[in-house]
Amino acid sequence: MTTVSRNWVLAGAPEGEPVIDNFRMVSTELPALREGGIRVANTYISVDPGVLDRLTRDSYAPRLQPGEVIDGFSVGVVAESRNPRFEVGDRVSSANGWREGYVSSGRGVLRLHPAVFSPPLSERAAIGALGVSGLTAYFGIRRVAEARDGEAVLVSSAAGPVGSTALQVARNLGCRTVGIAGSEDKCRLVTDELGADKCINYRAEPDLAAAISRVCPGGVDVYFDNVGGETLDAALMNMNTGGRVAISGQVSEYARVQPRGIRAVGEMINRRLTMTGFVVWDFLPHFRQAMSEMREWIVSDRLVFREEIIDGFENAPEAFLGLFRGENRGRRLIRLVSDA
Amino acid sequence: MTTVSRNWVLAGAPEGEPVIDNFRMVSTELPALREGGIRVANTYISVDPGVLDRLTRDSYAPRLQPGEVIDGFSVGVVAESRNPRFEVGDRVSSANGWREGYVSSGRGVLRLHPAVFSPPLSERAAIGALGVSGLTAYFGIRRVAEARDGEAVLVSSAAGPVGSTALQVARNLGCRTVGIAGSEDKCRLVTDELGADKCINYRAEPDLAAAISRVCPGGVDVYFDNVGGETLDAALMNMNTGGRVAISGQVSEYARVQPRGIRAVGEMINRRLTMTGFVVWDFLPHFRQAMSEMREWIVSDRLVFREEIIDGFENAPEAFLGLFRGENRGRRLIRLVSDA
Repeated sequence: MTTVSRNWVLAGAPEGEPVIDNFRMVSTELPALREGGIRVANTYISVDPGVLDRLTRDSYAPRLQPGEVIDGFSVGVVAESRNPRFEVGDRVSSANGWREGYVSSGRGVLRLHPAVFSPPLSERAAIGALGVSGLTAYFGIRRVAEARDGEAVLVSSAAGPVGSTALQVARNLGCRTVGIAGSEDKCRLVTDELGADKCINYRAEPDLAAAISRVCPGGVDVYFDNVGGETLDAALMNMNTGGRVAISGQVSEYARVQPRGIRAVGEMINRRLTMTGFVVWDFLPHFRQAMSEMREWIVSDRLVFREEIIDGFENAPEAFLGLFRGENRGRRLIRLVSDA
Repeated sequence: MTTVSRNWVLAGAPEGEPVIDNFRMVSTELPALREGGIRVANTYISVDPGVLDRLTRDSYAPRLQPGEVIDGFSVGVVAESRNPRFEVGDRVSSANGWREGYVSSGRGVLRLHPAVFSPPLSERAAIGALGVSGLTAYFGIRRVAEARDGEAVLVSSAAGPVGSTALQVARNLGCRTVGIAGSEDKCRLVTDELGADKCINYRAEPDLAAAISRVCPGGVDVYFDNVGGETLDAALMNMNTGGRVAISGQVSEYARVQPRGIRAVGEMINRRLTMTGFVVWDFLPHFRQAMSEMREWIVSDRLVFREEIIDGFENAPEAFLGLFRGENRGRRLIRLVSDA
């Protein structure tokens, strides 16, 4: 028996804005299973803005080379198994990229625990609310910044998949929450749908530090940073003594040739701040416990997560490009099979 | 009985380089003791380069106003006491500035424990090796960065009072140590007298990040930062995963109108770094334990501290100005009484 998977690969690195010609679809024959192997048929893949960074430069992983499969997360079903850790029918997730299916030794493939991924939760929550974005938010707030009941928590990119979850995790821990987002619409989402106490539309504020000070008169205890640059500086100017900054992303820096960085390093001393950069994979042993807690919040309507389902594997690159035109209204997931 | 203390006060803030006319000596009559009060006759005061920052701008403390006493540390003898915590003859230290003597409620006055400050240690060690510089180094390495046996520790301003102690504390904990200093002479001090494994003369290195990488081929686990700016950036580019940066000072920034800050914030994520700003007073409850451990190192010749004794209270401003001409060969202490 042979099985073919279509994959999306990098045709060539974007020069400036990414375009459709940067992507190419190829068909590959999956090898027969060896002892210990599994074959997975994907049901959903994710398209993520952070992938742009992988296409254009080295960061925490080396940049993608032409011919390599585009990064993405997937959920799927084990279709064949010669590995005692997996049974046919198991739901799994992986970071194996934009593929219809794959063969693996099982390394890096996460078995989705039925107690977490059962109705009302779909398996796609593993790359949505309980996926990397959501877990990044969870661990950033809970383990890196150690936000506590009653503290003031500020979150940038508050309408994005990471920020929106970070705000809600903080709120569920009993924190006062303030978001920073880039439009009045996004700010309405942040306060009305996500339940933040306040939201700052940074495009309407000539002096962001002053705006934060106005909205957080008692100062900021925890800042969850997705953005870096000026925004991080403005947050540093408003931190309380002993404040913590969790550095999750530096989106404002990715498009710059030379990073701007931050100026207010002296505030680290004046205010006794701790700033910590992290990647969600550092917390892998704690994923299941985190997912269980987040499931409870989802089921009890204390954690909302916006997703947008687009049908058809062939539509992945267009869905990706749309992210940079601001089209998306939540995390974009591609549904590969109609009955998923 | 009345007692008069001469004090050095700020005449006017420096415009550019500090000059002798920025200082003025005034005589004040100390008030009679009330219940709970003590009167202290100082034996030594310190002159510290960090005071320049206090003279020119707000930092962790508001800037000094004309007429206010110049910041400095002192050790002295309790000459009169109506406070049950102090007896006449007790040795004490304080941060009460450049005064011959003072009256105090005892708040902020540290009684020097005789078990620590007994021969071969002089009381002046309380504002020298065991003073704020030394304790800053100790807590930065031990508690903030938590340097561990076998780790690689990089220290800037390695020939200065803080850096030189930080290097030796790290070495005594079993770390490999590398200093950064501004001349070949200072580098010789760092390796030959302080026992660091290597020292980088940054003035001889067009690319400091490359120099650190050459000297620390296995990367840096802990960076003790006195300097900020380009030096901090160069260190960040060389940190190992999970590395810690203790931010003790930002000397390269103090003379700038606009701080430069750092560019390499993205490395915080890539390398999972933690950066923490601190002030030694945060660790006040742990001072005595720290001093005991450091005393053992001093007595067993595992911690050397260079000091320079200048006689005469009237010479304090000149001694201070000399710091910025690079005249000093260790921490400068002013001896107020000839038999101390």
